[in-house]
Amino acid sequence: MVEPKTDIEFYLDFTSPYAYLASTQIETLAARHERNVIWRPFLIGATFKVTGRKAPVQIPLVNEYTLNDVQRYARLLDQPLNFPLKFPILSVKASRLFYFLRQRDGKQQHAIAFAKAVFRAYFVARKDITSNEVLAELMTPFDLDQIEVNEIVKSDEMKIHFKAVVDKAIERGVFGAPMFIVEGEMFWGVDRMDHLDKWLQNGGF
Amino acid sequence: MVEPKTDIEFYLDFTSPYAYLASTQIETLAARHERNVIWRPFLIGATFKVTGRKAPVQIPLVNEYTLNDVQRYARLLDQPLNFPLKFPILSVKASRLFYFLRQRDGKQQHAIAFAKAVFRAYFVARKDITSNEVLAELMTPFDLDQIEVNEIVKSDEMKIHFKAVVDKAIERGVFGAPMFIVEGEMFWGVDRMDHLDKWLQNGGF
Repeated sequence: MVEPKTDIEFYLDFTSPYAYLASTQIETLAARHERNVIWRPFLIGATFKVTGRKAPVQIPLVNEYTLNDVQRYARLLDQPLNFPLKFPILSVKASRLFYFLRQRDGKQQHAIAFAKAVFRAYFVARKDITSNEVLAELMTPFDLDQIEVNEIVKSDEMKIHFKAVVDKAIERGVFGAPMFIVEGEMFWGVDRMDHLDKWLQNGGF
Repeated sequence: MVEPKTDIEFYLDFTSPYAYLASTQIETLAARHERNVIWRPFLIGATFKVTGRKAPVQIPLVNEYTLNDVQRYARLLDQPLNFPLKFPILSVKASRLFYFLRQRDGKQQHAIAFAKAVFRAYFVARKDITSNEVLAELMTPFDLDQIEVNEIVKSDEMKIHFKAVVDKAIERGVFGAPMFIVEGEMFWGVDRMDHLDKWLQNGGF
């Protein structure tokens, strides 16, 4: 009997351009190793309370470097990126909607499609993904209307659900995005995806 | 007439394990593109006053991740690394000696050999590179004895020289190590060396 392969967990925050870039690459990487990817939106901001860190754009010198690096990285990966006008943002609403879809469907296919649409809306179309109207538009393919979206983003159930995800992430040592976890090994950053790739290829190194 | 190719500037701090790893890779990379590398030891700690950042090992969660990541990275690059017992350290003395050699010789060949010896002493042999005795030992091949080393590390001339290097680095926006600069473009981290490589290969991207 063949043991099923462990899934790759993909911690992301919709406000992270590096997580966006990683989201464009992870499926090809995972397919190469016949792995599933579990997408886990969370809040980097919540980890800052534990680590005392700040977003790169809030740090002198790092700010300028990062804005250039992100766009250079996108060109290298041949991915579209138009840096958002409002940045960073609090991604709770989009995250709660992601987990709502996942719960409703009992599988993550639509939730992932929604996550990709959120990333594209924010980092390509430069839309405000904190707006209920924008989120409702992105939810149309998944049979949710504006009224339902308005309810979900403020529902106690999804608040509690999402808070638990964030708490669990911090408990596991996740402090940034993108963060990949497979078989207890953590890989932080789109720039560690080649390490993840080699790790899966060789069964560690 | 063929224009000479711009040098690659390599900002490093002797206390940075990522700078150590980068130092084992940069010459091969530069040779591939027929570029010289200008080694520039500086102090990351001095940039923290501007950025408000801390060393990764001083940050909860990031600490544990980084210790694992550094060693995993070394294995991937097939480079020896025995994590120092005393870490991080203030690398002013080794840096002043580096610039002394460079000034004395009028070229950087010996200074670079010394820099490599410092990195190996610290990250492979686990020696205390803040010790005058250790530094004198590393200086033996370059015809400096213990008494001379003791003088150089506290000489006003080298203090002023090194402080100017650090101030210039910050003025140029350098906030971490390793940092590579070529033709005004900055590449931060051993994990950006593949970007640097492609940049030099394609004349930008």
